[in-house]
Amino acid sequence: MPDLSLYLVTDRRLSLGRSTVDIVRAAVAGGVTCVQLREKECSTRQFVTEARAVRELLAGTGIPLIINDRLDVALAVGADGVHLGQTDMLIADARRLVGTDMLIGISAECVDDAVRAQAEGADYVGISPVFATPTKTDTAPALGLDGVALIRAAVSLPLVGIGGIGPGNATEVIRAGCDGVAVVSAIISAPDPKRAAAELKTIIRRAKEHP
Amino acid sequence: MPDLSLYLVTDRRLSLGRSTVDIVRAAVAGGVTCVQLREKECSTRQFVTEARAVRELLAGTGIPLIINDRLDVALAVGADGVHLGQTDMLIADARRLVGTDMLIGISAECVDDAVRAQAEGADYVGISPVFATPTKTDTAPALGLDGVALIRAAVSLPLVGIGGIGPGNATEVIRAGCDGVAVVSAIISAPDPKRAAAELKTIIRRAKEHP
Repeated sequence: MPDLSLYLVTDRRLSLGRSTVDIVRAAVAGGVTCVQLREKECSTRQFVTEARAVRELLAGTGIPLIINDRLDVALAVGADGVHLGQTDMLIADARRLVGTDMLIGISAECVDDAVRAQAEGADYVGISPVFATPTKTDTAPALGLDGVALIRAAVSLPLVGIGGIGPGNATEVIRAGCDGVAVVSAIISAPDPKRAAAELKTIIRRAKEHP
Repeated sequence: MPDLSLYLVTDRRLSLGRSTVDIVRAAVAGGVTCVQLREKECSTRQFVTEARAVRELLAGTGIPLIINDRLDVALAVGADGVHLGQTDMLIADARRLVGTDMLIGISAECVDDAVRAQAEGADYVGISPVFATPTKTDTAPALGLDGVALIRAAVSLPLVGIGGIGPGNATEVIRAGCDGVAVVSAIISAPDPKRAAAELKTIIRRAKEHP
């Protein structure tokens, strides 16, 4: 399993006009350990082009490229994984298509989602929203740290918390049981994405060293 | 190559509240020879569920199921083909993923698009819009029958005309060089989709018998 400790999720709408490739480059320089491309509004062709550019950027770094929802894009560019929400393809269908060549991550909003994802063969679980967040408006109520701890107790898979996480609260998310934190706006909307990533990286490393 | 002579393209927004599966069932009873599912607004999970239902409906009929744009959905349900527009995945990427197991159809709006599609290994070309149409609002100027004839002269692949085609003009589209006509609203918005399909089927058969 790759290092999911600082997991970047992209969103071109929140990138303040900067290209996703530029944001990813800066975030990688700052220390992100995993990159998920999430594109809900561009054409398939644009998504493939962008994913291929990020794939090349990450080549040789050991940082996995995960594609949100679109298994076709993931297959086309040879991504390392696909991340599936509760309205995306079912794990069983996805696993049949990618075998064990790709990681499959699943979004979970409650203990039941996470337990089911583990039973169905997910490789890791993204749990959300940990805190209330303006990035996504169609989400379930916030899990809070207690909710994170409940999911941690219920599944053994790697857990990545997402939703409203930044430098001020990343430490407690790790201490509540997450193996990593996923961020969107904390890096991609930052004036200096490299510096924002580096700051989070330091905080997460310290939280893991002093649990 | 399957029979593309009466090629149904779905669009849930134009189905007058009837389910896509019900529309396809009626259209098949009326004689459509090919079904393309086009879903631009539903989740991947809904698209897979619907495609699988149509796949089962078509099993044993010899009528191919083509999925618009989404190669992931096509692979998940074992569709017979995928139809790619000019902003969807490039043929080269798609072919690498599906080999020769699936048909690849390409949308062309001009001679150049069609010639390129043939050179790149498409199995058939959908040429559009033949006539002005309210179904799609982001299209190029209408090809007209002269445009159809120009494309017919330039490529040897099967051609399916789409855009503004109905009982009143299907004959001339076939005579101008199309191997088949694709329709959206002429069937899915019809009060009786089975009857609308049967009427078109008769017209197309006669046009092919008396070119």
